[in-house]
Amino acid sequence: MAQFHCLTFLTDYGLEDAFVAVCHAVASQVAPDVQITDITHLIPLGDIRRGAMVLAQAVPYFPPAVHVAVVDPGVGTARRGVAVEAGGSLFVGPDNGLLSVAVAAAGGAVRAVSLTNRALWRDTTAVTFHGRDIFMPVAARLAAGLPLEQAGEPAEVNSLVTLPRPECRITSGGALVEVVTVDGFGNVQLSLPGADAPRAGLTPGKTVTLTWAGREITAPFVTTFGEVAPGEPLCYRDSGDWVALAVANGNAARRYDLRPGTRMTLIVT
Amino acid sequence: MAQFHCLTFLTDYGLEDAFVAVCHAVASQVAPDVQITDITHLIPLGDIRRGAMVLAQAVPYFPPAVHVAVVDPGVGTARRGVAVEAGGSLFVGPDNGLLSVAVAAAGGAVRAVSLTNRALWRDTTAVTFHGRDIFMPVAARLAAGLPLEQAGEPAEVNSLVTLPRPECRITSGGALVEVVTVDGFGNVQLSLPGADAPRAGLTPGKTVTLTWAGREITAPFVTTFGEVAPGEPLCYRDSGDWVALAVANGNAARRYDLRPGTRMTLIVT
Amino acid sequence: MAQFHCLTFLTDYGLEDAFVAVCHAVASQVAPDVQITDITHLIPLGDIRRGAMVLAQAVPYFPPAVHVAVVDPGVGTARRGVAVEAGGSLFVGPDNGLLSVAVAAAGGAVRAVSLTNRALWRDTTAVTFHGRDIFMPVAARLAAGLPLEQAGEPAEVNSLVTLPRPECRITSGGALVEVVTVDGFGNVQLSLPGADAPRAGLTPGKTVTLTWAGREITAPFVTTFGEVAPGEPLCYRDSGDWVALAVANGNAARRYDLRPGTRMTLIVT
Repeated sequence: MAQFHCLTFLTDYGLEDAFVAVCHAVASQVAPDVQITDITHLIPLGDIRRGAMVLAQAVPYFPPAVHVAVVDPGVGTARRGVAVEAGGSLFVGPDNGLLSVAVAAAGGAVRAVSLTNRALWRDTTAVTFHGRDIFMPVAARLAAGLPLEQAGEPAEVNSLVTLPRPECRITSGGALVEVVTVDGFGNVQLSLPGADAPRAGLTPGKTVTLTWAGREITAPFVTTFGEVAPGEPLCYRDSGDWVALAVANGNAARRYDLRPGTRMTLIVT
Repeated sequence: MAQFHCLTFLTDYGLEDAFVAVCHAVASQVAPDVQITDITHLIPLGDIRRGAMVLAQAVPYFPPAVHVAVVDPGVGTARRGVAVEAGGSLFVGPDNGLLSVAVAAAGGAVRAVSLTNRALWRDTTAVTFHGRDIFMPVAARLAAGLPLEQAGEPAEVNSLVTLPRPECRITSGGALVEVVTVDGFGNVQLSLPGADAPRAGLTPGKTVTLTWAGREITAPFVTTFGEVAPGEPLCYRDSGDWVALAVANGNAARRYDLRPGTRMTLIVT
Repeated sequence: MAQFHCLTFLTDYGLEDAFVAVCHAVASQVAPDVQITDITHLIPLGDIRRGAMVLAQAVPYFPPAVHVAVVDPGVGTARRGVAVEAGGSLFVGPDNGLLSVAVAAAGGAVRAVSLTNRALWRDTTAVTFHGRDIFMPVAARLAAGLPLEQAGEPAEVNSLVTLPRPECRITSGGALVEVVTVDGFGNVQLSLPGADAPRAGLTPGKTVTLTWAGREITAPFVTTFGEVAPGEPLCYRDSGDWVALAVANGNAARRYDLRPGTRMTLIVT
């Protein structure tokens, strides 16, 4: 009996090689009826934080699924491979924080195992391609109905590596925030949830002043890009419902030289 | 009863984020049996004309389908979302001309609705991601059998936004033409249909002289790239059966600095 | 009766146009039950050797399948289109060497036909898009159960174009090797099979010195990237089990200006 009909796949493998296709082939042979959806394979090489954010933003739109994510600069070292149950889904990948944001957003880890059951791995001596040889075959077995506890030894959910939460402190008249991620268009997502925006005084029609490292920009808080002229900055609640900074018809990250982790003071007037 | 087994998807979302995958997830949950085929997601951001041309060139090879296209610089403004019936298929997207070339090539709009039935939308307050929240869920319902008229209020087919037809005037011994689109290899498609080439005097073995903005190039009219030496220009009937300009083993658009909309005089000798 | 459930697709078509989607549409209409897996469409334009290597590295992970590959700088010239049986799979594409490495790795060609049965082609006059008009429709028929001999005239397996084998000569204390391919991360695969590495004296803990064109680099032979500091070079057995050169967190091909065909002397100490 299949436990999951949907398996998602996110990596930093790129699209120039056969790496992604080979993982699909391995999974399809283990679980022919599972539908595989690629989330993206263009996470910048080794950028765990970016991978974690993209995964977390995709997962809420899927039905219960096995989510396989591999951004794994420590492949072949002592870091564990894990499968984590959260919110009715399973998350499979390296235990380096990559899964942690999505797991937390899904309600937190309920159970976890370390992927130590070698009988489920592909027969191989290669240690550079865990996606193909460990994560995908194990994930496909889980999708096909294998009970989680048979994938390896139990792991304490408290022992799972988690990424530090981006700072967000709401103040009177604003917030101390952090750049969380930058999407492919250069839109800059801040650590302030859209739902908390009103508490920071942020409602449509207000003006936002962001200051960091001696720089300062001012932008209207709007609901659509069309409210500002091309080339002008704007703040808005983005499609994941986070407060974000963009430039109409432009690339905010590039223009303002912003990258994940930059801390800013946000003042509302 | 499913009305369509095939749903296609074309956007300018790029492949670096989860945007495309999230749309797939939304559609698959509404219409699990529909096969989704991605046409491309690398339309340059906001380039409606390029999106329209790529869509139009893809549609003829598909069976009757729901074609979803989103290149939408006006998202969140007053522009309508529409579903248009043409040639036995449905076209779903913003009413900004993006669908118009494919609709015309399919025989013209038979019926159209404005996507005003909010009961079909995803529950959300976000207004930046209509692909996920409006176009995909509505398109998937239509694919699954929802009658078109239930997607919203009727729209006059004459009121649909259409892109201006690229100029093409056949003269004695040539034509006045326009660059329609440039593909990923830099091949330059002109507004002269291959079927009309003989009327312009253009048959294999002839020579084409193109002039524009003080520039002039001469190229043989051939049937295969192999007929000219690497680095040499050539004119030919392309795979969509339009007259096109290319450079063997090279990038014609870059070499000659050509872009959509450039008008040229084409003389055959 | 379907002969194959899986059809793979590798090209240099890029992802910016509708070319790949159109080929999917053509195949799906001929063989609706066949699962199409894209290997990659980002082979550099016309780079037969790179296409051949990527195909060969992907095929072993698939079940018996119809493998369609199109990297075809000679499209429209006299080169044949072929379908080749090897190792229980079929390989369909231009007879220019593209299929040859995968065919050899699958045990060598058992039978081949020249794709001369025009009744299987799409009705078209275009000669620039054999992927859509010849290779995909024929491959889909084969996947759906058409016997190979009905796809065209028999071709002598000895007459098929093959790429020259990359040089690899094991010496006492090393090997004369050649760069075979460079992946999307800049990792440099050499022509020395991992299984032959011990015969060349190459075992974990040894040091490799590579010399070519007046350059020389030294790198440890390791089993995981984590064993060297970021920015340092390393040699290892890669995921396809070939000896390879990489830079931890870096791009070895770019740093050392290496490309396929470069010959090197490899000395083990």
